[in-house]
Amino acid sequence: MLESWTDGPTKSAIVEFAERAVNSVAPEERVAVFDNDGTLWCEKPAYIQLDFLVRRIAEQVAADPALAAEQPYTAAASGDLAWFGEADTKHYNGDDSDLKLLAGAVLSANATITTEEHAARVNAFFADARHPTLGRAYTACGYAPMIELLRYLESFGFTNYIVSGGGRDFMRPVTTAMYGVPPERVIGSSVGLIYQNGELLTTAQPEFLNDGPVKPVRIWGRVGRRPIFAVGNSNGDIEMLQYAMAASGPSLAMVIHHDDADREFAYTAGAEKALDHVETSGWTRVSMRDDWRIVFSD
Amino acid sequence: MLESWTDGPTKSAIVEFAERAVNSVAPEERVAVFDNDGTLWCEKPAYIQLDFLVRRIAEQVAADPALAAEQPYTAAASGDLAWFGEADTKHYNGDDSDLKLLAGAVLSANATITTEEHAARVNAFFADARHPTLGRAYTACGYAPMIELLRYLESFGFTNYIVSGGGRDFMRPVTTAMYGVPPERVIGSSVGLIYQNGELLTTAQPEFLNDGPVKPVRIWGRVGRRPIFAVGNSNGDIEMLQYAMAASGPSLAMVIHHDDADREFAYTAGAEKALDHVETSGWTRVSMRDDWRIVFSD
Repeated sequence: MLESWTDGPTKSAIVEFAERAVNSVAPEERVAVFDNDGTLWCEKPAYIQLDFLVRRIAEQVAADPALAAEQPYTAAASGDLAWFGEADTKHYNGDDSDLKLLAGAVLSANATITTEEHAARVNAFFADARHPTLGRAYTACGYAPMIELLRYLESFGFTNYIVSGGGRDFMRPVTTAMYGVPPERVIGSSVGLIYQNGELLTTAQPEFLNDGPVKPVRIWGRVGRRPIFAVGNSNGDIEMLQYAMAASGPSLAMVIHHDDADREFAYTAGAEKALDHVETSGWTRVSMRDDWRIVFSD
Repeated sequence: MLESWTDGPTKSAIVEFAERAVNSVAPEERVAVFDNDGTLWCEKPAYIQLDFLVRRIAEQVAADPALAAEQPYTAAASGDLAWFGEADTKHYNGDDSDLKLLAGAVLSANATITTEEHAARVNAFFADARHPTLGRAYTACGYAPMIELLRYLESFGFTNYIVSGGGRDFMRPVTTAMYGVPPERVIGSSVGLIYQNGELLTTAQPEFLNDGPVKPVRIWGRVGRRPIFAVGNSNGDIEMLQYAMAASGPSLAMVIHHDDADREFAYTAGAEKALDHVETSGWTRVSMRDDWRIVFSD
């Protein structure tokens, strides 16, 4: 097992942790949590969910051209994806004006439809959307070593959860096929829902932004157990990893380091503090370049 | 199986539903949801959780006698449980003043402790608290026919969830032993939690009041699937039962009718509208008196 991981300290840390857990932790307490964007699938050059949302916003402009007078509809209509990247950069530089425009459009992009209709839109997106630079379908952008790790932990009696800042109901339609993780074990960000005549309708109101300290809170809310294994790749995963590492028995926290420009992407922006914990907190760094024999399964 | 159910139309409805489901619904979509208070365990003469909270409020007064100057601390300190019942009656008559005093005290009764400490308080309560009139421990107040039904549905591949207006973290410490339902499948009301240094701390801020239309919203949030079997006993369960009955395939909604003053309690207050649906919506009424050979297992 773990054939797609190279032999070395990272793989050894996983193997040793799994063996300690199986010898000292009750099966129902063997809970593992996985971030998604940048941990289980690619998040560059943009979040996959952003592509889904920009396409939807472009549809909204096509149906109502007057919308194109304002951002982000102007950019979506003209295919100006740079605007969306710059909104994020401006935010890091302290200017939230574009991010606020974007947030309002994003929240309302799929409002006032049933949860079933929302799932149908997500499925339609994944049926033909492709990664813009890697030459593969988004559904083939899951990291093979991580999918192998999910199966490996299951073989030791672990139950795996996805705990992502991404949309809960954006991930759920594809997580079973891509990762073998069913909807009831997907924890993510969400909009509020309204019950009406046997159906649940989406709203444009944010419910959870599942990032940072919210991740451990939502893990407890959903699972009612403290995870003992946690893996992420960004500063928004720090609290989740700390929460796992504060377990009384064996625990393991891993940070995926995107250092593989040849096969995927190389970046540390937004991950600096998480990577610092590798030195200061005994977390395990996963080098995509050195620890993974392959990145994708095909 | 279902030995504690008498032969008749109610038991037949369950058996026929389970057989239809197993023949036409994928195993992962066989989701069943159970209310708790009055559906899986007794809720009279008062919610079990109210007993837990009143005992805790009495402890707070013992530690700080000045609290006894105001309600509900006065009542808790003097063992005046009638005040708590009257707060509810006044609420039904349009006077919320006592209920507001109660809500504030209830929310703050277990604030600012870790989730582990909260579980320890719950376990200490259940270790020796007894039902005030039925002469049995609260942990022996689960309805034997309903526990048998949980196992029966599991034998047909169903996954059972508890979906209760009661406190999520009040139920979780005992649901595995009492019902065979683990913490990750308990959906209930909750207070907000704060993450701090590897621990989650309770607050006095309400998060979810898991009742009425909130029940289907939380079911989707937690499970990501529509249940096809739902059982409750009060008006706060109506939306959850409607949500299950709106499934495209086989579905069953049941309402427990407390009509058994000899063995448990007889009441319809708060259940009138739910019972109306038995006539108007094809829901199945469960008569505790006629459909159950036994109520408790001992």
